[in-house]
Amino acid sequence: MKQRILSGMRPTGKLHLGHLTGALETWVSLQNDYDNHHLIADWHALTTALDRTAELKENTRQMVMDWIACGIDPEQSPIFVQSRIPQHAELHLIFSMLITVPRLERNPAVKEQAKALNIEDKMSYGHLGYPVLQAADILLYKGDLVPVGEDQLPHLEITREIARRFNTLFAPVFPEPEAKITKFGRFPGTDAQRMSKSLNNTILISEKPADLELKLRKCITDPLKARRGDPGRPEVCPIFTYRQKFAPETADQIAADCRSGVLGCAADKKELTEKIAICMQPIWEKRRLYEENPSLIDDILEDGTSRAQAIAKETMAEVREAMKLP
Amino acid sequence: MKQRILSGMRPTGKLHLGHLTGALETWVSLQNDYDNHHLIADWHALTTALDRTAELKENTRQMVMDWIACGIDPEQSPIFVQSRIPQHAELHLIFSMLITVPRLERNPAVKEQAKALNIEDKMSYGHLGYPVLQAADILLYKGDLVPVGEDQLPHLEITREIARRFNTLFAPVFPEPEAKITKFGRFPGTDAQRMSKSLNNTILISEKPADLELKLRKCITDPLKARRGDPGRPEVCPIFTYRQKFAPETADQIAADCRSGVLGCAADKKELTEKIAICMQPIWEKRRLYEENPSLIDDILEDGTSRAQAIAKETMAEVREAMKLP
Repeated sequence: MKQRILSGMRPTGKLHLGHLTGALETWVSLQNDYDNHHLIADWHALTTALDRTAELKENTRQMVMDWIACGIDPEQSPIFVQSRIPQHAELHLIFSMLITVPRLERNPAVKEQAKALNIEDKMSYGHLGYPVLQAADILLYKGDLVPVGEDQLPHLEITREIARRFNTLFAPVFPEPEAKITKFGRFPGTDAQRMSKSLNNTILISEKPADLELKLRKCITDPLKARRGDPGRPEVCPIFTYRQKFAPETADQIAADCRSGVLGCAADKKELTEKIAICMQPIWEKRRLYEENPSLIDDILEDGTSRAQAIAKETMAEVREAMKLP
Repeated sequence: MKQRILSGMRPTGKLHLGHLTGALETWVSLQNDYDNHHLIADWHALTTALDRTAELKENTRQMVMDWIACGIDPEQSPIFVQSRIPQHAELHLIFSMLITVPRLERNPAVKEQAKALNIEDKMSYGHLGYPVLQAADILLYKGDLVPVGEDQLPHLEITREIARRFNTLFAPVFPEPEAKITKFGRFPGTDAQRMSKSLNNTILISEKPADLELKLRKCITDPLKARRGDPGRPEVCPIFTYRQKFAPETADQIAADCRSGVLGCAADKKELTEKIAICMQPIWEKRRLYEENPSLIDDILEDGTSRAQAIAKETMAEVREAMKLP
């Protein structure tokens, strides 16, 4: 039997190339060798976007279209909505008894986020419990593996602790999921910082060709290369990272021409825009199919959610049996 | 339309006369004038009895038999099992985002309990969130009133805060439940301390007549009244409190005879045992009916749970609609 992988994202809306080169390509590459389940973590979105819940529906739709357009096959790997499966909340409630407040407060990931959001003295109860909900998400499906970045390891450690504690207290119901660490270089936005919606420096997976061209045209390059003829440094230029991704076969020549100064940024960008468009064309086309037939996404979510819930119900029956609940 | 009252207990097993004179008689007295719902709070039991979940099933059964024997009519007032209604866990999860950790840590009731149990530095996450789950229990049924002792007022204040916060953030879905403060004198156990299972000083509602007699025989009286002839002080004697409860018409005369010394404790106890047995007889008989037909309790719980869940589902549909969840 294939090992099960549980992976998910918060529904933040249209995804960008950072998501593509980060999570999505990894998910697609694991699709045939593992039993994948993809979670739309809308409960989790509440921790930081309580005032924007009205956007969750459309954000979910846009995100799922990106997932599928980029190659996730919802027949093979169910895509499901967390909040539609009450078993997540049930298991979360049970798990909330299996871990102490000080243990959660020691979690460096939560600590850093609290600091970044300036909510250290007013963090919500649910926000502190984020890793408990994550444990429920993973263990409800008895996930063997979880693709995570290194920064997520402390969360996964909490999942493993909770699984051990449950198994010791009641019965060996849960696996101790292992991290499948995904390493990918930091993908730059158009301002050369990390590509991120909040920095307003993204290129969307669903970018219209005209916008793609515009964004690339305005994209930062090596600030020391003011005009054609100046020698450039590809290693500091986001445009060059994009090229390595979308036209790697041309990268060596372009790097040489950039360094020598023969190649100007404008020409480079123009040519790269075409290359990216060629790569993205099949993704755009596939996406358009779903944009034009919204009920397809409804059906996919309904089907995926009912398949996931079947597993969730089985696990919860085992949990109740192990705990001998009334 | 009648106002709705939400009341519940943790399933701790067979109840005692402290429960009868405290909660149960209040519940029964409210039965006709309000729309009552009675919750078996088995999720809550996890906060302090995680290692004894195997007892929950039988404890639930014993408690419900006591409820019904004492006059709760499950046709009129549904009796339902919290953990069988996943909507409790769902609403709890949403509410967990609506209150901060420092607010919960300020709750004096939780603080005192943590101190009493010596778990101040290792309180479980779920234990800290006890009042959040309680808020979900009450608001899931849009309870207008909650019968509570004064010590429970801080919890109810958290429920009201959460209701307000939800209504402000999303839509006015919830009432702000009011406390219906139940005042009853402290009911003494057989050692004259507060009657409590943990003090091993209880007289059970389901006490067998022989055990009732034995427990009364061994019950503490006024320590200054060593033998018949000594003057006694009814006001310090648990036996006298029991008399006030079960044979109030005889209390004045007995008090006088105790003070004068004419009446000895042994005779007093013997006569009172008979009086209590007469009062308890219909309760015992009713209880026996359910003891002999266990499936009756199964049916009552199934029926009550399904009626409660119908309301819970409606509320959660409103909640999802108000939040516009995907």
